[in-house]
Amino acid sequence: MQDSKVKQIIEAAKKRFAHYGLSKTTMNEIASDIGMSKASLYYYFVDKEKLFIAVVENDMQEFVRQATELMERPIEPSSKLKKYVSLRNDLLLQLLNLSKVQVTNASDLFNPVYDELRKHFFEQEKQLITKILNMGIDENEFAKITIDHYAHLFVSSLIGLRVTSLTNPVRDLSAQELMDRQTNLFVEIFLASIRKNG
Amino acid sequence: MQDSKVKQIIEAAKKRFAHYGLSKTTMNEIASDIGMSKASLYYYFVDKEKLFIAVVENDMQEFVRQATELMERPIEPSSKLKKYVSLRNDLLLQLLNLSKVQVTNASDLFNPVYDELRKHFFEQEKQLITKILNMGIDENEFAKITIDHYAHLFVSSLIGLRVTSLTNPVRDLSAQELMDRQTNLFVEIFLASIRKNG
Repeated sequence: MQDSKVKQIIEAAKKRFAHYGLSKTTMNEIASDIGMSKASLYYYFVDKEKLFIAVVENDMQEFVRQATELMERPIEPSSKLKKYVSLRNDLLLQLLNLSKVQVTNASDLFNPVYDELRKHFFEQEKQLITKILNMGIDENEFAKITIDHYAHLFVSSLIGLRVTSLTNPVRDLSAQELMDRQTNLFVEIFLASIRKNG
Repeated sequence: MQDSKVKQIIEAAKKRFAHYGLSKTTMNEIASDIGMSKASLYYYFVDKEKLFIAVVENDMQEFVRQATELMERPIEPSSKLKKYVSLRNDLLLQLLNLSKVQVTNASDLFNPVYDELRKHFFEQEKQLITKILNMGIDENEFAKITIDHYAHLFVSSLIGLRVTSLTNPVRDLSAQELMDRQTNLFVEIFLASIRKNG
Protein backbone atom coordinates (compact mmCIF):
# COMPACT_ATOMS: atom_id res chain seq x y z
CA MET A 1 0.00 0.00 0.00
CA GLN A 2 2.72 2.48 0.99
CA ASP A 3 4.72 1.47 -2.06
CA SER A 4 1.97 2.50 -4.41
CA LYS A 5 1.62 5.87 -2.64
CA VAL A 6 5.37 6.44 -2.92
CA LYS A 7 5.22 5.48 -6.57
CA GLN A 8 2.39 7.93 -7.17
CA ILE A 9 4.31 10.75 -5.46
CA ILE A 10 7.45 10.02 -7.45
CA GLU A 11 5.52 10.05 -10.73
CA ALA A 12 3.89 13.39 -9.90
CA ALA A 13 7.16 14.90 -8.71
CA LYS A 14 8.95 13.72 -11.82
CA LYS A 15 6.43 15.49 -14.06
CA ARG A 16 6.77 18.72 -12.11
CA PHE A 17 10.58 18.58 -12.05
CA ALA A 18 10.79 17.75 -15.74
CA HIS A 19 8.67 20.79 -16.58
CA TYR A 20 9.84 23.36 -14.06
CA GLY A 21 13.07 22.05 -12.57
CA LEU A 22 13.94 21.43 -8.94
CA SER A 23 14.02 25.00 -7.68
CA LYS A 24 10.75 26.12 -9.26
CA THR A 25 8.73 23.19 -7.96
CA THR A 26 7.11 23.25 -4.51
CA MET A 27 5.98 20.40 -2.28
CA ASN A 28 2.57 22.07 -2.23
CA GLU A 29 2.18 21.72 -5.97
CA ILE A 30 3.17 18.08 -5.96
CA ALA A 31 0.75 17.33 -3.13
CA SER A 32 -2.08 19.13 -4.90
CA ASP A 33 -1.35 17.35 -8.21
CA ILE A 34 -2.27 14.04 -6.59
CA GLY A 35 -4.92 15.38 -4.21
CA MET A 36 -2.83 14.71 -1.16
CA SER A 37 -2.43 16.95 1.88
CA LYS A 38 0.92 18.64 2.36
CA ALA A 39 1.23 16.87 5.72
CA SER A 40 0.80 13.47 4.10
CA LEU A 41 3.40 14.25 1.48
CA TYR A 42 5.88 15.26 4.19
CA TYR A 43 5.14 12.01 5.94
CA TYR A 44 6.63 10.18 2.95
CA PHE A 45 9.40 12.64 2.09
CA VAL A 46 10.86 14.94 4.74
CA ASP A 47 11.82 17.58 2.20
CA LYS A 48 11.87 18.38 -1.50
CA GLU A 49 15.53 17.39 -1.87
CA LYS A 50 14.84 13.89 -0.53
CA LEU A 51 11.96 13.56 -2.94
CA PHE A 52 14.16 14.75 -5.78
CA ILE A 53 16.78 12.14 -4.90
CA ALA A 54 14.06 9.49 -4.95
CA VAL A 55 13.09 10.63 -8.46
CA VAL A 56 16.72 10.45 -9.61
CA GLU A 57 17.09 7.01 -8.07
CA ASN A 58 13.92 5.93 -9.80
CA ASP A 59 15.28 7.03 -13.20
CA MET A 60 18.54 5.22 -12.50
CA GLN A 61 16.69 2.03 -11.69
CA GLU A 62 14.61 2.38 -14.83
CA PHE A 63 17.89 2.68 -16.73
CA VAL A 64 19.24 -0.47 -15.06
CA ARG A 65 16.02 -2.27 -16.02
CA GLN A 66 16.40 -1.21 -19.67
CA ALA A 67 20.08 -2.11 -19.71
CA THR A 68 19.28 -5.52 -18.25
CA GLU A 69 16.68 -6.03 -20.96
CA LEU A 70 19.32 -5.06 -23.51
CA MET A 71 21.47 -7.97 -22.28
CA GLU A 72 18.83 -10.41 -23.45
CA ARG A 73 18.55 -9.11 -26.98
CA PRO A 74 19.83 -11.35 -29.77
CA ILE A 75 22.55 -8.95 -30.89
CA GLU A 76 26.35 -9.06 -30.73
CA PRO A 77 27.98 -8.03 -27.45
CA SER A 78 29.74 -5.18 -29.28
CA SER A 79 26.36 -3.79 -30.33
CA LYS A 80 25.20 -4.12 -26.75
CA LEU A 81 28.11 -1.96 -25.60
CA LYS A 82 27.20 0.69 -28.17
CA LYS A 83 23.55 0.71 -27.22
CA TYR A 84 24.48 0.81 -23.55
CA VAL A 85 26.44 4.02 -24.07
CA SER A 86 23.59 5.65 -25.93
CA LEU A 87 21.10 4.69 -23.18
CA ARG A 88 23.51 5.97 -20.56
CA ASN A 89 23.98 9.32 -22.29
CA ASP A 90 20.19 9.67 -22.47
CA LEU A 91 19.96 9.03 -18.75
CA LEU A 92 22.34 11.87 -17.99
CA LEU A 93 20.39 14.32 -20.17
CA GLN A 94 17.16 13.20 -18.54
CA LEU A 95 18.57 13.73 -15.04
CA LEU A 96 19.94 17.15 -15.96
CA ASN A 97 16.54 18.08 -17.32
CA LEU A 98 14.95 17.25 -13.96
CA SER A 99 17.11 19.66 -12.00
CA LYS A 100 17.28 22.22 -14.83
CA VAL A 101 20.69 23.15 -13.50
CA GLN A 102 22.70 25.08 -16.04
CA VAL A 103 25.87 23.02 -16.50
CA THR A 104 28.88 25.16 -17.27
CA ASN A 105 31.42 23.72 -14.85
CA ALA A 106 32.39 20.27 -13.67
CA SER A 107 31.32 21.21 -10.15
CA ASP A 108 27.74 21.60 -11.42
CA LEU A 109 27.76 17.89 -12.18
CA PHE A 110 29.11 16.71 -8.85
CA ASN A 111 26.66 17.95 -6.27
CA PRO A 112 27.62 16.31 -2.94
CA VAL A 113 23.94 15.48 -2.39
CA TYR A 114 24.27 12.64 -4.90
CA ASP A 115 27.62 11.28 -3.74
CA GLU A 116 26.24 8.08 -2.28
CA LEU A 117 23.88 7.48 -5.17
CA ARG A 118 26.74 8.05 -7.62
CA LYS A 119 28.98 5.54 -5.88
CA HIS A 120 26.33 2.89 -5.79
CA PHE A 121 25.37 3.52 -9.42
CA PHE A 122 28.99 3.23 -10.52
CA GLU A 123 29.08 -0.30 -9.11
CA GLN A 124 25.82 -1.15 -10.85
CA GLU A 125 27.18 0.08 -14.15
CA LYS A 126 30.36 -1.91 -13.63
CA GLN A 127 28.26 -5.03 -13.13
CA LEU A 128 26.30 -4.41 -16.30
CA ILE A 129 29.45 -3.90 -18.36
CA THR A 130 31.03 -6.95 -16.74
CA LYS A 131 28.06 -8.95 -17.98
CA ILE A 132 28.43 -7.71 -21.56
CA LEU A 133 32.19 -8.38 -21.57
CA ASN A 134 31.58 -11.88 -20.26
CA MET A 135 29.08 -12.50 -23.04
CA GLY A 136 31.56 -11.25 -25.62
CA ILE A 137 34.22 -13.64 -24.36
CA ASP A 138 31.81 -16.55 -24.19
CA GLU A 139 30.58 -15.88 -27.70
CA ASN A 140 34.17 -15.53 -28.88
CA GLU A 141 33.72 -11.96 -30.09
CA PHE A 142 36.12 -10.54 -27.47
CA ALA A 143 39.59 -11.70 -26.45
CA LYS A 144 40.17 -13.07 -22.94
CA ILE A 145 40.75 -9.83 -21.06
CA THR A 146 40.86 -9.08 -17.33
CA ILE A 147 37.17 -8.25 -17.25
CA ASP A 148 37.23 -6.42 -13.95
CA HIS A 149 39.90 -3.95 -15.09
CA TYR A 150 38.20 -3.34 -18.42
CA ALA A 151 34.74 -2.85 -16.93
CA HIS A 152 36.14 -0.32 -14.44
CA LEU A 153 37.92 1.48 -17.26
CA PHE A 154 34.89 1.54 -19.53
CA VAL A 155 32.54 3.06 -16.96
CA SER A 156 35.17 5.51 -15.66
CA SER A 157 36.33 6.82 -19.02
CA LEU A 158 32.76 7.54 -20.02
CA ILE A 159 32.27 9.61 -16.88
CA GLY A 160 35.19 11.80 -17.92
CA LEU A 161 33.95 12.07 -21.48
CA ARG A 162 30.47 13.13 -20.44
CA VAL A 163 31.84 15.71 -18.01
CA THR A 164 34.14 17.43 -20.49
CA SER A 165 31.57 17.29 -23.31
CA LEU A 166 29.22 19.31 -21.14
CA THR A 167 31.77 21.71 -19.67
CA ASN A 168 34.39 22.21 -22.38
CA PRO A 169 32.35 23.00 -25.48
CA VAL A 170 33.68 22.77 -28.98
CA ARG A 171 32.76 25.19 -31.72
CA ASP A 172 29.74 24.30 -33.89
CA LEU A 173 28.63 21.37 -31.76
CA SER A 174 25.99 21.18 -29.05
CA ALA A 175 27.04 19.51 -25.80
CA GLN A 176 24.88 16.56 -26.72
CA GLU A 177 26.42 16.18 -30.17
CA LEU A 178 29.90 16.41 -28.69
CA MET A 179 29.02 13.83 -26.05
CA ASP A 180 27.61 11.44 -28.66
CA ARG A 181 30.60 11.86 -30.93
CA GLN A 182 33.16 11.42 -28.18
CA THR A 183 31.51 8.50 -26.42
CA ASN A 184 30.99 6.71 -29.75
CA LEU A 185 34.65 7.20 -30.59
CA PHE A 186 35.55 5.80 -27.19
CA VAL A 187 33.50 2.64 -27.81
CA GLU A 188 35.26 2.19 -31.15
CA ILE A 189 38.68 2.47 -29.52
CA PHE A 190 37.68 0.18 -26.70
CA LEU A 191 36.25 -2.43 -29.05
CA ALA A 192 39.29 -2.29 -31.33
CA SER A 193 41.44 -3.38 -28.40
CA ILE A 194 39.28 -6.27 -27.18
CA ARG A 195 37.74 -7.62 -30.36
CA LYS A 196 39.20 -10.78 -31.74
CA ASN A 197 40.58 -10.10 -35.17
CA GLY A 198 38.33 -10.94 -38.03
CA MET B 1 60.43 43.29 -8.46
CA GLN B 2 56.83 42.40 -7.63
CA ASP B 3 57.23 39.15 -9.51
CA SER B 4 60.05 37.97 -7.30
CA LYS B 5 58.03 38.84 -4.18
CA VAL B 6 55.08 36.88 -5.50
CA LYS B 7 57.36 33.99 -6.28
CA GLN B 8 58.78 34.06 -2.76
CA ILE B 9 55.30 34.08 -1.23
CA ILE B 10 54.15 31.19 -3.40
CA GLU B 11 57.22 29.12 -2.46
CA ALA B 12 56.65 29.73 1.26
CA ALA B 13 52.93 29.04 1.01
CA LYS B 14 53.56 25.84 -0.91
CA LYS B 15 55.83 24.52 1.84
CA ARG B 16 53.26 25.32 4.52
CA PHE B 17 50.38 23.80 2.55
CA ALA B 18 52.37 20.68 1.70
CA HIS B 19 53.11 20.11 5.37
CA TYR B 20 49.93 21.21 7.08
CA GLY B 21 47.29 21.47 4.38
CA LEU B 22 45.12 24.42 3.44
CA SER B 23 42.92 24.66 6.53
CA LYS B 24 45.74 24.38 9.09
CA THR B 25 47.89 27.08 7.51
CA THR B 26 47.41 30.77 8.36
CA MET B 27 48.39 33.88 6.43
CA ASN B 28 50.27 34.96 9.57
CA GLU B 29 52.54 31.92 9.41
CA ILE B 30 53.31 32.39 5.74
CA ALA B 31 54.12 36.07 6.29
CA SER B 32 56.39 35.27 9.21
CA ASP B 33 58.18 32.50 7.28
CA ILE B 34 59.49 35.09 4.86
CA GLY B 35 59.81 37.97 7.31
CA MET B 36 56.98 39.92 5.73
CA SER B 37 54.26 41.87 7.50
CA LYS B 38 50.75 40.48 7.36
CA ALA B 39 49.63 43.71 5.68
CA SER B 40 52.18 43.29 2.89
CA LEU B 41 51.14 39.70 2.32
CA TYR B 42 47.50 40.78 2.02
CA TYR B 43 48.62 43.41 -0.45
CA TYR B 44 49.69 40.60 -2.79
CA PHE B 45 46.93 38.09 -2.00
CA VAL B 46 43.58 39.25 -0.71
CA ASP B 47 42.94 36.00 1.15
CA LYS B 48 44.34 32.54 1.81
CA GLU B 49 42.14 30.94 -0.83
CA LYS B 50 43.48 33.23 -3.57
CA LEU B 51 47.02 32.39 -2.47
CA PHE B 52 46.20 28.70 -2.50
CA ILE B 53 44.86 28.99 -6.05
CA ALA B 54 48.08 30.72 -7.05
CA VAL B 55 50.05 27.79 -5.62
CA VAL B 56 47.90 25.30 -7.53
CA GLU B 57 48.31 27.31 -10.72
CA ASN B 58 52.04 27.38 -10.15
CA ASP B 59 52.18 23.58 -9.86
CA MET B 60 50.10 23.25 -13.01
CA GLN B 61 52.46 25.51 -14.91
CA GLU B 62 55.45 23.54 -13.61
CA PHE B 63 53.71 20.43 -14.95
CA VAL B 64 53.19 22.07 -18.34
CA ARG B 65 56.88 22.99 -18.36
CA GLN B 66 57.91 19.41 -17.64
CA ALA B 67 55.48 18.03 -20.21
CA THR B 68 56.83 20.46 -22.81
CA GLU B 69 60.35 19.29 -22.00
CA LEU B 70 59.15 15.73 -22.43
CA MET B 71 58.14 16.60 -26.01
CA GLU B 72 61.76 17.27 -26.88
CA ARG B 73 63.12 13.96 -25.63
CA PRO B 74 64.43 11.52 -28.24
CA ILE B 75 61.87 8.83 -27.46
CA GLU B 76 58.93 7.41 -29.38
CA PRO B 77 55.66 9.35 -29.26
CA SER B 78 54.01 6.32 -27.64
CA SER B 79 56.53 6.51 -24.78
CA LYS B 80 55.80 10.20 -24.48
CA LEU B 81 52.12 9.46 -24.00
CA LYS B 82 52.95 6.97 -21.27
CA LYS B 83 55.26 9.33 -19.46
CA TYR B 84 52.74 12.12 -19.82
CA VAL B 85 50.14 10.08 -17.96
CA SER B 86 52.54 9.26 -15.17
CA LEU B 87 53.52 12.94 -14.77
CA ARG B 88 49.86 13.92 -14.81
CA ASN B 89 48.93 11.40 -12.11
CA ASP B 90 51.77 12.75 -9.98
CA LEU B 91 50.43 16.27 -10.39
CA LEU B 92 47.03 15.24 -9.06
CA LEU B 93 48.55 13.59 -5.99
CA GLN B 94 50.71 16.63 -5.41
CA LEU B 95 47.72 18.98 -5.60
CA LEU B 96 45.68 16.78 -3.27
CA ASN B 97 48.56 16.81 -0.82
CA LEU B 98 48.50 20.61 -0.76
CA SER B 99 44.90 20.84 0.32
CA LYS B 100 45.05 17.68 2.45
CA VAL B 101 41.39 17.17 1.64
CA GLN B 102 40.25 13.64 2.34
CA VAL B 103 38.92 12.40 -1.00
CA THR B 104 36.06 9.97 -0.59
CA ASN B 105 33.58 11.36 -3.06
CA ALA B 106 33.70 12.79 -6.55
CA SER B 107 32.41 16.10 -5.18
CA ASP B 108 35.63 16.41 -3.11
CA LEU B 109 37.53 16.61 -6.38
CA PHE B 110 35.38 19.25 -8.05
CA ASN B 111 35.49 22.25 -5.76
CA PRO B 112 33.83 25.15 -7.63
CA VAL B 113 36.75 27.37 -6.57
CA TYR B 114 38.92 25.70 -9.23
CA ASP B 115 36.34 25.64 -12.03
CA GLU B 116 38.04 28.27 -14.16
CA LEU B 117 41.50 26.86 -13.57
CA ARG B 118 40.26 23.40 -14.46
CA LYS B 119 38.74 24.58 -17.73
CA HIS B 120 41.85 26.39 -18.75
CA PHE B 121 44.08 23.48 -17.78
CA PHE B 122 41.95 21.07 -19.80
CA GLU B 123 42.68 23.10 -22.92
CA GLN B 124 46.39 23.14 -22.08
CA GLU B 125 46.42 19.39 -21.70
CA LYS B 126 44.57 18.98 -24.97
CA GLN B 127 47.24 21.05 -26.69
CA LEU B 128 50.04 18.96 -25.23
CA ILE B 129 48.39 15.70 -26.32
CA THR B 130 47.69 17.19 -29.74
CA LYS B 131 51.41 17.82 -30.06
CA ILE B 132 52.33 14.24 -29.17
CA LEU B 133 49.73 12.83 -31.58
CA ASN B 134 51.05 15.04 -34.34
CA MET B 135 54.56 13.80 -33.68
CA GLY B 136 53.39 10.20 -33.81
CA ILE B 137 51.73 10.75 -37.16
CA ASP B 138 54.74 12.63 -38.55
CA GLU B 139 57.09 9.90 -37.38
CA ASN B 140 54.77 7.29 -38.83
CA GLU B 141 54.19 5.56 -35.49
CA PHE B 142 50.48 6.51 -35.38
CA ALA B 143 47.83 6.22 -38.06
CA LYS B 144 46.24 9.36 -39.54
CA ILE B 145 43.53 9.98 -36.97
CA THR B 146 41.33 13.03 -36.33
CA ILE B 147 43.76 14.46 -33.84
CA ASP B 148 41.37 16.88 -32.23
CA HIS B 149 38.83 14.18 -31.38
CA TYR B 150 41.47 11.82 -30.03
CA ALA B 151 43.20 14.47 -27.92
CA HIS B 152 39.86 15.46 -26.38
CA LEU B 153 39.11 11.81 -25.69
CA PHE B 154 42.50 11.10 -24.18
CA VAL B 155 42.42 13.97 -21.70
CA SER B 156 38.75 13.42 -20.82
CA SER B 157 38.92 9.68 -20.26
CA LEU B 158 41.85 10.12 -17.90
CA ILE B 159 39.83 12.59 -15.83
CA GLY B 160 37.18 9.93 -15.34
CA LEU B 161 39.75 7.26 -14.53
CA ARG B 162 41.44 9.39 -11.91
CA VAL B 163 38.14 10.32 -10.29
CA THR B 164 36.86 6.77 -9.91
CA SER B 165 40.26 5.42 -8.82
CA LEU B 166 40.15 7.83 -5.90
CA THR B 167 36.48 7.46 -5.03
CA ASN B 168 35.56 3.87 -5.87
CA PRO B 169 38.29 1.83 -4.22
CA VAL B 170 39.07 -1.75 -5.08
CA ARG B 171 40.07 -4.35 -2.53
CA ASP B 172 43.81 -4.76 -1.87
CA LEU B 173 44.88 -1.71 -3.87
CA SER B 174 45.66 1.82 -2.76
CA ALA B 175 43.99 4.62 -4.70
CA GLN B 176 47.34 5.42 -6.25
CA GLU B 177 47.97 1.84 -7.35
CA LEU B 178 44.50 1.63 -8.81
CA MET B 179 44.99 4.93 -10.63
CA ASP B 180 48.34 3.80 -12.05
CA ARG B 181 46.97 0.46 -13.15
CA GLN B 182 43.85 1.90 -14.76
CA THR B 183 45.50 4.82 -16.50
CA ASN B 184 48.25 2.54 -17.84
CA LEU B 185 45.64 0.16 -19.17
CA PHE B 186 43.92 3.09 -20.82
CA VAL B 187 47.10 4.16 -22.61
CA GLU B 188 47.56 0.60 -23.87
CA ILE B 189 44.03 0.51 -25.26
CA PHE B 190 44.40 3.96 -26.77
CA LEU B 191 47.73 3.13 -28.38
CA ALA B 192 46.45 -0.18 -29.74
CA SER B 193 43.84 1.73 -31.70
CA ILE B 194 46.12 4.39 -33.19
CA ARG B 195 49.41 2.58 -33.66
CA LYS B 196 50.29 1.52 -37.14
CA ASN B 197 50.54 -2.24 -37.24
CA GLY B 198 53.98 -3.64 -36.84
